[in-house]
Amino acid sequence: MNFAARLDEAIASSGSLLCVGLDPDIADLPDAAAAERWCAATLEATLEFACAVKPNVAFFEQYGAAGWAVLERLRALVPANRLLIVDAKCSDVGHTAQAYARALFDGLGADAVTVNPLLGEDSVRPFLDRFGRGALLLTRTSNSGAADLLEQPLGDGTPLFEHIAALAMQWDPGGSAGLVVGATAPDAVAAVRRRAPLLPMLLPGVGAQGGALEEATAAGLDARGAGLMVSISRAIALAPEGPAAAARAFRRRLDAIRVATLQTPAS
Amino acid sequence: MNFAARLDEAIASSGSLLCVGLDPDIADLPDAAAAERWCAATLEATLEFACAVKPNVAFFEQYGAAGWAVLERLRALVPANRLLIVDAKCSDVGHTAQAYARALFDGLGADAVTVNPLLGEDSVRPFLDRFGRGALLLTRTSNSGAADLLEQPLGDGTPLFEHIAALAMQWDPGGSAGLVVGATAPDAVAAVRRRAPLLPMLLPGVGAQGGALEEATAAGLDARGAGLMVSISRAIALAPEGPAAAARAFRRRLDAIRVATLQTPAS
Repeated sequence: MNFAARLDEAIASSGSLLCVGLDPDIADLPDAAAAERWCAATLEATLEFACAVKPNVAFFEQYGAAGWAVLERLRALVPANRLLIVDAKCSDVGHTAQAYARALFDGLGADAVTVNPLLGEDSVRPFLDRFGRGALLLTRTSNSGAADLLEQPLGDGTPLFEHIAALAMQWDPGGSAGLVVGATAPDAVAAVRRRAPLLPMLLPGVGAQGGALEEATAAGLDARGAGLMVSISRAIALAPEGPAAAARAFRRRLDAIRVATLQTPAS
Repeated sequence: MNFAARLDEAIASSGSLLCVGLDPDIADLPDAAAAERWCAATLEATLEFACAVKPNVAFFEQYGAAGWAVLERLRALVPANRLLIVDAKCSDVGHTAQAYARALFDGLGADAVTVNPLLGEDSVRPFLDRFGRGALLLTRTSNSGAADLLEQPLGDGTPLFEHIAALAMQWDPGGSAGLVVGATAPDAVAAVRRRAPLLPMLLPGVGAQGGALEEATAAGLDARGAGLMVSISRAIALAPEGPAAAARAFRRRLDAIRVATLQTPAS
């Protein structure tokens, strides 16, 4: 089964578009052992309500080798009907990208990896060519800096981020490629969905970063009302009502958007 | 002292523009202990002839947590008058980029880090704002995939990689920013040097990747005949004549280019 089909299954079995982000905060969690307990507790509280889990390696590397060891043990906490997305935003030339693919797919057991496409096809190919795994290409990120490069228009007027979406469609060997598009810009989500109607999308930026959940999700769903993960980190992990209640509520909101979108004829 | 001044000192004290790349090959070095012995032996043989050392984290992450622990111990092997460049090609939104900066500057003791600028200013800022440390922005890489995004012309005809060089000049708080430009495209090196006359440059792609050492180095030197590191990995580490002899020979070739460039009046 290719990655896109595996995402379909994870969404169906969880009834959820939610991806729980794991970003342990070193200010609150002083060592790797505390970070690991926090990850385990967050997963235990939220996995029922999520199709995927997304640790961001930056937060684990803060703890050094002990943090990387926590990443290695996460796989065992994620059941087979949920996806483990390793958010590493890898980018390097082909020979080195192969080493990243081994480290993240084989070493950490990632089902998909986020990849920065700035270096072009040979830098992405080692992630795309692992049948069953996914390569989620940064397309239009959720931050203010997206204006500096990603929103720059190319010679024909196409913004760079739409060019990336088109390249991802070309490069995809079939069910491996996906796109990361920040929920802070629902118009960009819609533009990317038009360019890449069939590719899975990961939407970060909801919650702490202020993304508009409803609009971005509606814009990102594919024609089947699927093909989408909405990633939420701090707004679940640090929710005053607790992560389980927050994850349950986000699942419900996301499902309501999915139902409403499918009932609205496309304009 | 800012990073640019520290690079000047490292070049002066070593008499060398050479940066030795450390890319342990898991096919030859089956475990982290073997990789660590290889790193130590390579450094012992070559540090005399180099201003800097550049481990690429991808190759260490292949060994999992044990590989990260090797990275943590490299700092102790690099003397204060040589630079430790951690090649991680980081990219993430500002909040997360802060975590990478802590992991690489504080955790690994990096003097400079390679950074992928696709996500714009806030993703680069945490690396730029560490006085004394360097942020080397990927500008025009050495691989074929550079054509896909980096060489794309923007609306005014400027290739994206020259836009990156111009942004780096704007963003630099003073002596922190540098640029990574592949030696495989000497014309691009020259174009970047025109856009950013004062920024330090790191040139990978010589040797195994086929970059033209003489032309790229001559194009990358600043007006003082400095401000440049030429990074060589496999062509030193795997040289039939041994890494010490290879590093000595590369230092001599680089120095000859420097002398010749300073003697040639600018056209």
